[in-house]
Amino acid sequence: MPRIIQVSVPSLRVTLSSIFRKQGFNSTDALYLAGTLIDADQRGISSHGTQRMAMYDAKIRHRIIDPHARPGIVRSKGATLLIDAHAAMGQLAMREATNLAIGLAQSHGLGLVTVRNSNHFGTAGQYARKAADSGFIGVVSTNSNPIVAPTHTAVPALGSNPIAVAAGYGSDQLDFDAATSTVSLGKVEVHEKTNQPIASDWAIDALGNISHDPVTIMRNIRSKPRHSALTPLGGTGEDHGGYKGYGLGLAVELFTGLFGDAPTSMDLNDTYFSHSILVISPDAYGGSDALAARVSQLAKRLRSLPSSDGHPVLFPGDKERAALAQHHDTVPIDEVSYKQVRDIAWGLDIDEPQIVRIDDGDSASAVGAHVASI
Amino acid sequence: MPRIIQVSVPSLRVTLSSIFRKQGFNSTDALYLAGTLIDADQRGISSHGTQRMAMYDAKIRHRIIDPHARPGIVRSKGATLLIDAHAAMGQLAMREATNLAIGLAQSHGLGLVTVRNSNHFGTAGQYARKAADSGFIGVVSTNSNPIVAPTHTAVPALGSNPIAVAAGYGSDQLDFDAATSTVSLGKVEVHEKTNQPIASDWAIDALGNISHDPVTIMRNIRSKPRHSALTPLGGTGEDHGGYKGYGLGLAVELFTGLFGDAPTSMDLNDTYFSHSILVISPDAYGGSDALAARVSQLAKRLRSLPSSDGHPVLFPGDKERAALAQHHDTVPIDEVSYKQVRDIAWGLDIDEPQIVRIDDGDSASAVGAHVASI
Repeated sequence: MPRIIQVSVPSLRVTLSSIFRKQGFNSTDALYLAGTLIDADQRGISSHGTQRMAMYDAKIRHRIIDPHARPGIVRSKGATLLIDAHAAMGQLAMREATNLAIGLAQSHGLGLVTVRNSNHFGTAGQYARKAADSGFIGVVSTNSNPIVAPTHTAVPALGSNPIAVAAGYGSDQLDFDAATSTVSLGKVEVHEKTNQPIASDWAIDALGNISHDPVTIMRNIRSKPRHSALTPLGGTGEDHGGYKGYGLGLAVELFTGLFGDAPTSMDLNDTYFSHSILVISPDAYGGSDALAARVSQLAKRLRSLPSSDGHPVLFPGDKERAALAQHHDTVPIDEVSYKQVRDIAWGLDIDEPQIVRIDDGDSASAVGAHVASI
Repeated sequence: MPRIIQVSVPSLRVTLSSIFRKQGFNSTDALYLAGTLIDADQRGISSHGTQRMAMYDAKIRHRIIDPHARPGIVRSKGATLLIDAHAAMGQLAMREATNLAIGLAQSHGLGLVTVRNSNHFGTAGQYARKAADSGFIGVVSTNSNPIVAPTHTAVPALGSNPIAVAAGYGSDQLDFDAATSTVSLGKVEVHEKTNQPIASDWAIDALGNISHDPVTIMRNIRSKPRHSALTPLGGTGEDHGGYKGYGLGLAVELFTGLFGDAPTSMDLNDTYFSHSILVISPDAYGGSDALAARVSQLAKRLRSLPSSDGHPVLFPGDKERAALAQHHDTVPIDEVSYKQVRDIAWGLDIDEPQIVRIDDGDSASAVGAHVASI
């Protein structure tokens, strides 16, 4: 097991925002970007947190991401908008899109904003949650690099194409965010890092056979052309409804690249991503407090159902909320990602994030020598 | 294998619309209702076709469905509407909701209509397709009786909660319609009728164990309380992403019963269903012809991918379009359903639908003696 570095959240915020600042983002944007990554770490979605810094850094240096880009409106019709991100960070394009969609929902009851020419936007859930926290309902999706095989082929032609839906407030908020593949690539990467075989049907090889070796899967997914693919939600073939995951992935392609007159996932290669956000006002449905109360009541009833396997019934967002409560002051970052961030920081004459503790495999320790050896 | 009756489509249309007429529907509605059921039969979705007549007949006789109901607007905010169906046939409430949503999309760019106090509405796909055929994008969902178990419980608490998405025109239309369970109940019923064991993890018993016997599953799903449940898309537990099917099912609960301040699936018992339809204008996205061309191009590229298992890669709707082409003049109806429709017709002094041929198990025959023995 690789070591896990427990990092001080305030310190990490200073380091990441300073990095973004030196990369050319203004202070507001830099702090916002640091916040979205740390929020993912705090919620236990480390695949979309600080570990992405090396990727963002490379893209900014190669001018794939433009720190100075300002998204602009391409076309609009009533409460529907198409925006060009002009190669902005996906998070900044979506911050703008979310605010626009909320404004449209305030005046029209709902609003739909599609963003094209963007980049990786972090978690889909954060934008849906922003809408919900503001008293609205949010539905968010994005396309991405082609890593999911449609039913009956081994060719990766769809992105992981997550769908996020959020409504209600607080600890009973409906906060759903999931790739339309069986699992997200991040889960395979966790197995790769720990070299644990995959027991389930998450990925196939170039012949369409189920593959259980995470190292081979990841090597083949990273190769160009890709020789491995994730299965759609429901798995390969039709017996377990895999064509439904494929179809839901296509619905995301519709709302993103197809709406945007932009590349679909088949043609993506780390950039030119498209996103969409639908925001709905609850006014016709009784208002935000009444809707939140209904969501809350359903959450409580579902959680109270008897378990069939020893695990409690959860409401979407419960796991992430529990992680958030646990990671208020420190977040866990794998050693490799920590070193990458430290090196980026040092290269820009910025202090590295402060280490609180180092967890060595299963056992936690806070030994000075460990810190020194990082 | 039960016998399959091949019925003349024009004759079936006369019989079904005459039945609806005598049940109290006006001529326009009666013909519309007959059309939606026959369309499902023609597309190979016989679970939502003529075989539903006995159920509708019973509900109309028990005044659960009101043939004279006219849906009315409860509340509106901009392009969002809440409608009360006043116990109308779901199909008629949704015909109204679809037209209203298209009108809202014409003026606002998009429109969302939620319907409450409704009944079973047939296939979700027909309303999404109506929007697409009219040059818009349609997204449709409905709640239903509780038959799907959330992750980690065996208690059926969600409906099969289908999601339909349609866009584009003609033979390359994106026409997706799927329950958020691994399979719809109709597929289990097909196994029940033919008494074929289920090889896959479609359903669980009251203890949460996978059940393969379709007769037991259906008996336990029909009992009150239910002692069996369908698995969410992704199956039981979390290994194959079953919490995603559960979460998507909850998203449908949000857009239907929760928006409608109406029962969620947990509390449904054959009536008080809620539906929703979102219609989007493609004007901000280049217009309907341009969008349809993009959808068509993606369909063709996906279909041309090499097969990994001998089955061709399909685009959502391909199977149903192939069935429709095959069933222009006759549709197959299982013998039990045919007799039910015949008896309802005779009871109302209406001629039974004309039999073209009877298929006896695997072999087809058109023997007069067979027809006489029905």
